[in-house]
Amino acid sequence: MLPYFEEFRKQFDPFLEKQFSENLPVTLYEPVQYLMKLGGKRLRPYSLWLAAYCYDNSKSTMAVQAAYALELFHAFTLVHDDIMDEAPLRRGKPTVHAAFNMNKAILSGDAMMVHCMDYLLNGYSDALALGLSRELAKTAIGVCQGQQLDMDFAERQEVSLSEYIQMIEAKTAILLGSAFRMGAMIGGANSTDQESLYIYGKETGIAFQIQDDFLDAFGGDAFGKQEGGDILQNKKTFLYLKGIELCPPDQLPGYLKAYNRTVSNEEEAKEKIAEIKSLWTEWGVGEATVAYLRLLEKSAHGALDQINLPAETSSFIRELGDALVWRLT
Amino acid sequence: MLPYFEEFRKQFDPFLEKQFSENLPVTLYEPVQYLMKLGGKRLRPYSLWLAAYCYDNSKSTMAVQAAYALELFHAFTLVHDDIMDEAPLRRGKPTVHAAFNMNKAILSGDAMMVHCMDYLLNGYSDALALGLSRELAKTAIGVCQGQQLDMDFAERQEVSLSEYIQMIEAKTAILLGSAFRMGAMIGGANSTDQESLYIYGKETGIAFQIQDDFLDAFGGDAFGKQEGGDILQNKKTFLYLKGIELCPPDQLPGYLKAYNRTVSNEEEAKEKIAEIKSLWTEWGVGEATVAYLRLLEKSAHGALDQINLPAETSSFIRELGDALVWRLT
Repeated sequence: MLPYFEEFRKQFDPFLEKQFSENLPVTLYEPVQYLMKLGGKRLRPYSLWLAAYCYDNSKSTMAVQAAYALELFHAFTLVHDDIMDEAPLRRGKPTVHAAFNMNKAILSGDAMMVHCMDYLLNGYSDALALGLSRELAKTAIGVCQGQQLDMDFAERQEVSLSEYIQMIEAKTAILLGSAFRMGAMIGGANSTDQESLYIYGKETGIAFQIQDDFLDAFGGDAFGKQEGGDILQNKKTFLYLKGIELCPPDQLPGYLKAYNRTVSNEEEAKEKIAEIKSLWTEWGVGEATVAYLRLLEKSAHGALDQINLPAETSSFIRELGDALVWRLT
Repeated sequence: MLPYFEEFRKQFDPFLEKQFSENLPVTLYEPVQYLMKLGGKRLRPYSLWLAAYCYDNSKSTMAVQAAYALELFHAFTLVHDDIMDEAPLRRGKPTVHAAFNMNKAILSGDAMMVHCMDYLLNGYSDALALGLSRELAKTAIGVCQGQQLDMDFAERQEVSLSEYIQMIEAKTAILLGSAFRMGAMIGGANSTDQESLYIYGKETGIAFQIQDDFLDAFGGDAFGKQEGGDILQNKKTFLYLKGIELCPPDQLPGYLKAYNRTVSNEEEAKEKIAEIKSLWTEWGVGEATVAYLRLLEKSAHGALDQINLPAETSSFIRELGDALVWRLT
């Protein structure tokens, strides 16, 4: 069980339940409520809340509004990304543009973003409101840039591993970093601790994405996803790019052709997955990926070791990261 | 000539020119630059700048960044609205989703919004940054709600005149009010003056929209629009709704049918416009619209008379509103 997760949910869920239930026009806020109530791990709001709790547990109630704002920001990115990806499902339910329509998805996404800023700007002391809003604005810019890079990469032939890492850092990892920093701000941490926690969250976030790529190929179907789904979609994942780095030069053209081919039936699909995975095994792509994750883990834990909290308290934050990524691979 | 408009452009244009020229990824910022450089009246940034100038002309340089942020916010609403309206042209050039594609229009619009917040949150004193950002967030929520109401009204059969005014107030007028309030904040006006200027801008903004409806029917083609365009599109304008109020009850079904019919050739179009305009003339719809504009003018000028500026200075602000709306009808 994640540390204090029950307590977090006891504070967070009723708050979430109350929001937007009476805002007008109903047509604007229905999609917001729909998406926010679809569930999800609540990873970002929980991280924010836990950081605040660790520094000053009396501030956890106060952290709920910012935690909610961050989940709202995350929801805004999901609803717009789902339009761009033409995704029909989110958490097993129709995406907002599928359940309502595209115009409502665009506009309710916009509303989520501006309400997020409004929640951060109001309901805190002036100094805290400014700190939280500036953090969110900076991160939001990064997230937009990361999403654009992701779309650009899908169209480009060559993408380097460092570009890929830069993209996942911007698109998803800095938001987790910001969640920890904002929680630390609310809990009253000094700015050195805030920065350390930001790094901890960011490195954990990068690792989380790379792990996601790894588990897609080597995780079996224990995680509810079809094994090899990324391979079938020719996705430029960490493993694919690591494969380009590690494959013998004379095998490169064959590898690129094999990976980027389209399959037309289940048999071909099985064949493609088996072929790519056997190449990766031959070249040590899996081991190299795990080794990279270990480096990130060291960097994340190194940052966490710097903070001025008693070890028994900072262990709660360590526990969260461990459950999320470090313990799985 | 608008007061100090040249001076405003001398400060604003070079600032605009510099922004985003080096931001990465290029693919995200190309549409931003494209839209910002399409031109436009620069009404909102100029209003903000002029208000700051009137209170303290030494602050006008400082006002440029907030003025730019506001134009960026306006551009964000345009690019997303154009997708929702499936509009092919904006200021005579292809809209962003037409010139680039829909995904870029969604994402670059998002980027405009978050950069707008970032410009307001950074580059000002803490107190000013908070004031400006809170004003923008509040107004942005209203603008989203107004856009949703506008879409809802297009699908609804019955819309009252007061609902229509509430919609244009939220969708466009409060942003002009905020422009004046933000300029007043930067110029150092007290909060009473800020509120008076907000009301002045808001009432002027409402009048501007109603005037737009009026000129579409009765303005000839002097304003570059085809006369009667709203009538041909069966748009629920101020005049249409005023017509419902003023028409004799027994003529109402005929009026609704006549207005909401679709025309299939130029002759029918001419006929429809002539018929509707003759009904409006018979019922005094034009006069009633102008009378309503006079009421708004009184309220706007009444608010402006309250501010603590010498008459010769506040006359610049009066001049701007007069040029925009009060002198045209």
